[in-house]
Amino acid sequence: MATQIRKDYILDRWVIVASERVKRPTDFAPRIREVSRRGTCPFCPGNEKMTPPASLIYIPSNGGIKRDKDSNGERTSNWLVRCVPNLYPALTPRKPLPLTGNEFHEIRDGIGAHEVIIESPTHDEHPHLASIKQLQLVLQAYLDRLREFSIWEYASIFRNHGKEAGASLSHAHSQIIATPMVPKLIAEELSACKNLYLKNNVCPFCKIIEIEHESPRFIYENRGFMALTPWASVYPFEFWILPKKHQHTLLQMKEIKDFAEALKKCLGSLARALNDPPYSYGFHIAPFKGNHEYFHWHLEVYPKLTIQAGFENSTGMFINIIPPESAAETLRNSIE
Amino acid sequence: MATQIRKDYILDRWVIVASERVKRPTDFAPRIREVSRRGTCPFCPGNEKMTPPASLIYIPSNGGIKRDKDSNGERTSNWLVRCVPNLYPALTPRKPLPLTGNEFHEIRDGIGAHEVIIESPTHDEHPHLASIKQLQLVLQAYLDRLREFSIWEYASIFRNHGKEAGASLSHAHSQIIATPMVPKLIAEELSACKNLYLKNNVCPFCKIIEIEHESPRFIYENRGFMALTPWASVYPFEFWILPKKHQHTLLQMKEIKDFAEALKKCLGSLARALNDPPYSYGFHIAPFKGNHEYFHWHLEVYPKLTIQAGFENSTGMFINIIPPESAAETLRNSIE
Repeated sequence: MATQIRKDYILDRWVIVASERVKRPTDFAPRIREVSRRGTCPFCPGNEKMTPPASLIYIPSNGGIKRDKDSNGERTSNWLVRCVPNLYPALTPRKPLPLTGNEFHEIRDGIGAHEVIIESPTHDEHPHLASIKQLQLVLQAYLDRLREFSIWEYASIFRNHGKEAGASLSHAHSQIIATPMVPKLIAEELSACKNLYLKNNVCPFCKIIEIEHESPRFIYENRGFMALTPWASVYPFEFWILPKKHQHTLLQMKEIKDFAEALKKCLGSLARALNDPPYSYGFHIAPFKGNHEYFHWHLEVYPKLTIQAGFENSTGMFINIIPPESAAETLRNSIE
Repeated sequence: MATQIRKDYILDRWVIVASERVKRPTDFAPRIREVSRRGTCPFCPGNEKMTPPASLIYIPSNGGIKRDKDSNGERTSNWLVRCVPNLYPALTPRKPLPLTGNEFHEIRDGIGAHEVIIESPTHDEHPHLASIKQLQLVLQAYLDRLREFSIWEYASIFRNHGKEAGASLSHAHSQIIATPMVPKLIAEELSACKNLYLKNNVCPFCKIIEIEHESPRFIYENRGFMALTPWASVYPFEFWILPKKHQHTLLQMKEIKDFAEALKKCLGSLARALNDPPYSYGFHIAPFKGNHEYFHWHLEVYPKLTIQAGFENSTGMFINIIPPESAAETLRNSIE
């Protein structure tokens, strides 16, 4: 394939799909793995005192699951999933400060929230290794914390896996940052989505699902979800998981088991195909306030196999050395 | 300082300046250095056959410098600066292909150019170590190649230093990629700049230079240039170098010696203050075609000390743990 420059489905974001730079997946350097130091892991059971008190825990109770939280300076230990404030928060809930900026020094107060969702008592139980039952609890915790954070403008749920993808601790965990404004990329996506919705009278993401189901970018589907490598993938082996039903926010999701299954299958395929590479994922959801019916939430997974540097950072254009069609084929063939 | 959320001078780009996450500069991990393998370096003198023929070389001649290029399959060896096509180009000049996209699969042909500028015959002569005289040659080569590439829409000149910043070879080199379209970030900057110019009747960058000269974000100045850490720095220790005279493109620069000096001083300060960290830099210049008089070219330097991951990639918001004012103080104090 001759090198192409592709535009994202809806965003004004362009990617050079540089197949003349192409390397086969197996050409990526094998990953150097950090040894996980279980004894000092602040997220492992027994070390609960190393984190702030939990804002939410799930504990087994009468054959079911009970929601609870730490209180009175005590820490509960027999949890299955545990949410705690981040010890080094990017944003914190506090009384707003009066701030004055000017035309060239615009400023907002850095209030919000930043929590860690510890996904399992078992240190290495990452999504591709976890049971569907455990993953359902993790997703339930996402929904519970999202609901709690709906007093803010937006909340980003994301996961960094592996040191090269920014994970400072190797214990299976996700993060959630609630922001006092709608982030730029989400605002751009909302706006583009709204314009296309008004123009075509159909949600662009519903349309994308329909088109890509029959394309070489299709990876996987079950009753509720479909996975694909996007047309203008920014990262090699980037893929998205989208709900088949039109839902503007994750809070509308009822098909938790289907999503857990899609997540495990697709991340498992990535781990098998590329030797458990570092990756990040992030949810794209509608902001809490206002009418965003036209939006379609989805999860974007960004494997970290190459380094973005001077060209990307100073132009906002990207170079992807793996055509999404090859990536989809590899991922499709590694689904188990 | 309480955590703030700052907007870029002109772009709709927001950065969480999270001082509660702050680490002192010395807390950054010492860099693990690759051993440079001089014997097999394709950019070292004697190995010219390992690259495509040079499109431009500077060679000493009668006490001055002569421009030349490789021809007839031969390689000239006594060069001071050497420009060659990238062996794994992101974009290549060739006959355009007819391409058909559709509403959700927009596409352009991947034509353009991608060259490497080998900055010195000496393997490790990076800008902070090079003589002003050698740096002037490098900058002259930038200008010469830019002129050559002005048949395209835009050309990005950038430099990746260190493995973590994407440099696959450690020999001192820059790169230039000519694109068949104006990249997104440059287009956004042009548009914002034009609006502010029309509104205030003054170039916003000229205004920024005036304001920041007296601010805690000032780093350095000489006759022709000023360096500052931008108000909403995306990266810890990010800094910009701007021409004091209003010039919309690098091609207008006459003050090559002043710029060489500013570059050496500021990159030297970064290397001394933070143990020669990995970094990238990229020029922001006006596109070749059209009237962009209102734009003000500049160089942006992005040290690579932290990892951008799930949050940044899925929201387009950034977290910077070093306030630009602290970064400027550190860099100011390390200028020699």
